[in-house]
Amino acid sequence: MRILILGGDGYLGWPTALRFSARGHEVTVVDNFARRRWHNEQSTGSLTPISGLADRVDAWREVSGKEIQSFVGGVEDGEFLDRVVADTSPEAVIHYGQQASAPFSMISRRHAVETQHANVIGNLNLLWSIREHVPNCHLIKLGTMGEYGTPNIDIEEGYIEIDHKGRKDTLPVPKLPGSLYHCSKVHDSTNIHFACRHWGLRATDLNQGVVYGVETEETVQDERLLTRFDYDELFGTALNRFCVQAMIGHPLTVYGRGGQTRGYLNIRDTLQCVELAASNPADLGEMRVYNQFTEQFSVKELAELVQKAGAEVGREVEIKSFPNPRVELEEHYYNATHSKLLDLGLQPHHLGEELVRSMLGKIDQYKDRVIQRAIMPKTSWSTGELHGQFAERVQSTREPQGAPVA
Amino acid sequence: MRILILGGDGYLGWPTALRFSARGHEVTVVDNFARRRWHNEQSTGSLTPISGLADRVDAWREVSGKEIQSFVGGVEDGEFLDRVVADTSPEAVIHYGQQASAPFSMISRRHAVETQHANVIGNLNLLWSIREHVPNCHLIKLGTMGEYGTPNIDIEEGYIEIDHKGRKDTLPVPKLPGSLYHCSKVHDSTNIHFACRHWGLRATDLNQGVVYGVETEETVQDERLLTRFDYDELFGTALNRFCVQAMIGHPLTVYGRGGQTRGYLNIRDTLQCVELAASNPADLGEMRVYNQFTEQFSVKELAELVQKAGAEVGREVEIKSFPNPRVELEEHYYNATHSKLLDLGLQPHHLGEELVRSMLGKIDQYKDRVIQRAIMPKTSWSTGELHGQFAERVQSTREPQGAPVA
Repeated sequence: MRILILGGDGYLGWPTALRFSARGHEVTVVDNFARRRWHNEQSTGSLTPISGLADRVDAWREVSGKEIQSFVGGVEDGEFLDRVVADTSPEAVIHYGQQASAPFSMISRRHAVETQHANVIGNLNLLWSIREHVPNCHLIKLGTMGEYGTPNIDIEEGYIEIDHKGRKDTLPVPKLPGSLYHCSKVHDSTNIHFACRHWGLRATDLNQGVVYGVETEETVQDERLLTRFDYDELFGTALNRFCVQAMIGHPLTVYGRGGQTRGYLNIRDTLQCVELAASNPADLGEMRVYNQFTEQFSVKELAELVQKAGAEVGREVEIKSFPNPRVELEEHYYNATHSKLLDLGLQPHHLGEELVRSMLGKIDQYKDRVIQRAIMPKTSWSTGELHGQFAERVQSTREPQGAPVA
Repeated sequence: MRILILGGDGYLGWPTALRFSARGHEVTVVDNFARRRWHNEQSTGSLTPISGLADRVDAWREVSGKEIQSFVGGVEDGEFLDRVVADTSPEAVIHYGQQASAPFSMISRRHAVETQHANVIGNLNLLWSIREHVPNCHLIKLGTMGEYGTPNIDIEEGYIEIDHKGRKDTLPVPKLPGSLYHCSKVHDSTNIHFACRHWGLRATDLNQGVVYGVETEETVQDERLLTRFDYDELFGTALNRFCVQAMIGHPLTVYGRGGQTRGYLNIRDTLQCVELAASNPADLGEMRVYNQFTEQFSVKELAELVQKAGAEVGREVEIKSFPNPRVELEEHYYNATHSKLLDLGLQPHHLGEELVRSMLGKIDQYKDRVIQRAIMPKTSWSTGELHGQFAERVQSTREPQGAPVA
């Protein structure tokens, strides 16, 4: 299959490129290195030492004898993207080419605008290019479970049957995104749904949970093939951050009471899910939505797991509660359906102490590279008290950290 | 009250500015004349001869003795908007400053991107400026009934209680927008809802139906105060277009079978609704949604009404079915709740033959200005056959007009 991977230099994009190339597909990656630039701006960086894209591609050729084609540019540049799509004529596009950090989108107006511009306009450009050049192409778009927020009802996979005043319809699940980044992904879903309904495109929206893990089958084959691993406030995700904190003797930074429950999955399962989506394409005119995670955990449960695994490798790990910079419920109902990928054949790698221990071991190898300053949260997502209709949904237990706006 | 009107040079923005100024409020308008520029690009224009903004402001001063302050610039320019908000310190912002044409957004990638960029980024800039400078300010945002599409259940005002697997929650109404313009308004709603829930801002989202009418209490006071009146394919709305067609002897251009049912309201009622929203502000933290229309009509019903009113002023009006350039159901269930503005005291101006006759009379006065070329639809919204899960929702009865993509 001819596969175009947007954001192919990133944490998930690069291992995905390797996976499809290893399976014999014709892989092209596109990246504008925005993620590397954002880290430069924050003076943070990947825990793992990562090669430049050209070096990665060279290393993969050496290791596997296979060629990955690459283009440097951004999806926000519609003409660039259009040329790439026309030239490569992909049968599947896997779109990771977005600003993917929630706290980044909340730093300032500039960061919020950069996030929504890159994500919404980039995705919109892609929809037009697919429509124009490869209308049968399967768009595999990375969404996020964070689009749904934490409603008081079960979270279905994209659509919900609503019975209202004696009539019924199956409609998109209502969304309660928790950051301007999450909002941007809801916007993307709305645009993609439109393009499928009105232009007859085909898409799979993978509403992914929080990904953890360092290695995949392919990245372990050569150190130059390593993918990035972030643990900083902006780009690090809960479990990855905790593992790094455990290894450098920093208390695990649990926000508030730690009852925030989300879906999680291993990076190896991300690759499995994307492969399953690609080999079972959506129908023309269909926007299929899969909830892509394997297990639900509260932040407190994760912290305790890391503490236990830490003890077994001789680390005394402290868990400490920090004021929550996010506006979110710390105790809430959470039950999200996630059966469709299992139905397609997903074999989950479950999270256990053994897996955490192996992550800790990998991190130990690079722990001298940890930038301490990046560990603590600095971005406050709200600066005022909340009132009105939705206050009970978002009541925070803390004092605002920033300057009050009211 | 200090009131800032974004898009204050437009069809609704200018009469709104006059209304609030007439009532003794301190009014500032902002516009970048994008609407005039888009008409220039299409070689179309307002049926009514409209003055430049500075001339309008002068005329209003002469007529009323009142001052309207104006700034020239676009909401997409975050720094400009931020200075205006800081300088004027508004108690209410009425946001009409958007690209508001559905067919415009479907012409090409450039038009789609311009629409979503102007609307989404402009609105996002505004949310940050309000948060930063006037967190108690009431945002009155013009949305559209078109955000909802035509679901098979009743359309509630913004929120719906969902009973699902034994649990309940009140959540945003799921949306099925019918163009990339309508998508942009859904994105705005998502961002505003976020800002209310997380930052404690207050907003009223007015999901407006299709507006018709030429005159308001203030615009009739002097010809230089006239608002624009569009009848072209891109910016003209159904009834306004039909009235112009009737007066120039062009058949009324009904798309397909004409069963498309939507909510409509008189321009005078738009002003009433916006006034009612401003004098009854939302609570802090609340995003209130009102469905802003007074009556539902099918396109066919409107055409017949114009035909009848035409006959009474001695015009023989032909109704003709044209291939539908839009992807929409031509027969569908439609029942939208719209009681909240009535509860606040809205006194609707109902649509009847008399009102249509008075519109026809006004149009007659300017009928030499009609640009014939602008009457027929040119933008096809889809270029392929539709398949899959949602095909039944959007099945069109016609052959595609543009080049097929598949």
